[in-house]
Amino acid sequence: MMDKNQISASFKEVQEYICLKLEELDGGSAFESDEWSRSEGGGGRTNTIKDGILIEKGGVAFSEVFGPVSEQMSKQLKLEGDSFFATGVSIVLHSKAVQHPIIHMNIRYFEIDQKKYWFGGGIDLTPIYVNEELAVLFHSKLKALCDEYDSTIYSQFKKGADEYFYLSHRNESRGVGGIFFDHFSANDKLSKEQIFDFCIKLGKLFPELYAEQISKSTLHDEMKREWQLLRRSRYVEFNLLHDRGTKFGIYSGGRTESILLSMPPEAKWVYNYQEKEEALEQHTQEILRNNRNWII
Amino acid sequence: MMDKNQISASFKEVQEYICLKLEELDGGSAFESDEWSRSEGGGGRTNTIKDGILIEKGGVAFSEVFGPVSEQMSKQLKLEGDSFFATGVSIVLHSKAVQHPIIHMNIRYFEIDQKKYWFGGGIDLTPIYVNEELAVLFHSKLKALCDEYDSTIYSQFKKGADEYFYLSHRNESRGVGGIFFDHFSANDKLSKEQIFDFCIKLGKLFPELYAEQISKSTLHDEMKREWQLLRRSRYVEFNLLHDRGTKFGIYSGGRTESILLSMPPEAKWVYNYQEKEEALEQHTQEILRNNRNWII
Repeated sequence: MMDKNQISASFKEVQEYICLKLEELDGGSAFESDEWSRSEGGGGRTNTIKDGILIEKGGVAFSEVFGPVSEQMSKQLKLEGDSFFATGVSIVLHSKAVQHPIIHMNIRYFEIDQKKYWFGGGIDLTPIYVNEELAVLFHSKLKALCDEYDSTIYSQFKKGADEYFYLSHRNESRGVGGIFFDHFSANDKLSKEQIFDFCIKLGKLFPELYAEQISKSTLHDEMKREWQLLRRSRYVEFNLLHDRGTKFGIYSGGRTESILLSMPPEAKWVYNYQEKEEALEQHTQEILRNNRNWII
Repeated sequence: MMDKNQISASFKEVQEYICLKLEELDGGSAFESDEWSRSEGGGGRTNTIKDGILIEKGGVAFSEVFGPVSEQMSKQLKLEGDSFFATGVSIVLHSKAVQHPIIHMNIRYFEIDQKKYWFGGGIDLTPIYVNEELAVLFHSKLKALCDEYDSTIYSQFKKGADEYFYLSHRNESRGVGGIFFDHFSANDKLSKEQIFDFCIKLGKLFPELYAEQISKSTLHDEMKREWQLLRRSRYVEFNLLHDRGTKFGIYSGGRTESILLSMPPEAKWVYNYQEKEEALEQHTQEILRNNRNWII
């Protein structure tokens, strides 16, 4: 049976693989690496990139933390048990160009009291201006990956993303979704090894998915930096109000700079911003108000 | 006995008074007013200002909301009871110049099931660069106001602010504090009328307190816009992770644009930003790491 140390080591390799591929893709900047440790147990390696040709600010973080479940963790995170082990890789990239998206991916493994375990993860795309073909392409690739394992999970995980990445106070989704899953453990269709394998493949698919969004995007004269900064402010709202990874990090005493890697380099808030009718911004806003089935 | 409608009407007047005074002070911009209603009961008037000579973005919001305590409110806000009534005035001003602070003030009145009531409120100062004399001045004025009512409340409320406006994930305070109080109702020293009076006086003191910070501030060549944008990002983190008003607004189904008035016009996040030794930024950072008694 595959153990937590193997999983953790593989996740660390996924981090390295992704960084290598993203450096090749960007071509103008390189990752810097910070190792850190957590006083209660474990630590991580936080890789960050900035001022690239494509990536304005991004981070690929690996962590492996463990120790007793603190009072705050059980209260705020509703974790039941005495000790925990958690390892994962998290990525957020804020692209520089307005025609390029924000993209996020996470894979994680969790153990409680050395017996109960589960995997979790997700990936979602936040275009500044929605390009419907690119949203379809993104979802198609995710569906193909899911289908390799179980033909029912794509629709289930797609729904998971639609629900999770929804900003109810804004009545809008943070982007065009993707997949999101949690508490995923062996069932009558998939073994622990297969679920692990699925997570690793998802991690390794990341650079390709991002590269496609970049290479197939189109720039339009009316695309505005201001709109990009406004969309990023919604990203900030999601991460600080709702994101489970952020909450887990903060309440488990993680390293703040690694947890808040996801924050954009710059963001803007305008009171009661109204998109102009028939403008590109309105087109995007309308799509974000209703989750779509990108694959029929 | 003074009733909730009187309190609400007086709060609305405080909003008007503050906006009038701030327009005079700014001299370059005027407030715009939006009335809104809440489907479950009540509504508000949101006054906003932007691109002024002094104020880059600011809001002075009045609201009066009431109705049944929803499941989400009782769960997320820990409100016990069937019906609630809440009215208040909230202000956040993001100054344009780096030598001018961010400032926040709130006064509120709460009733549960038409019997239990309390007042709450607070004011706090977030300089971009801490000027110790101005912090002392700010606290002295607040102490003088508190002392008019009860000589013990300043130190109690000052401690309240130190605890409340602390960002534990950053190990720093969001500014030089001020006062913060909640669940304040008649006791053996003060009647309901006196507490109400205290809240109104605090509200009306606001323009003077801000004007003083503006007129007595000094500009230094080394002060940087980038540092202002970084300090604002901490303000965003506080408001989305911790602020009770934001949580109350969101979970009671308030108007998002009014709740998130407090957001800065622009903010910046830099991974692992380090202040240079002996730079002005480091001086401010050191003060924010330890709450001070500004008045001895």
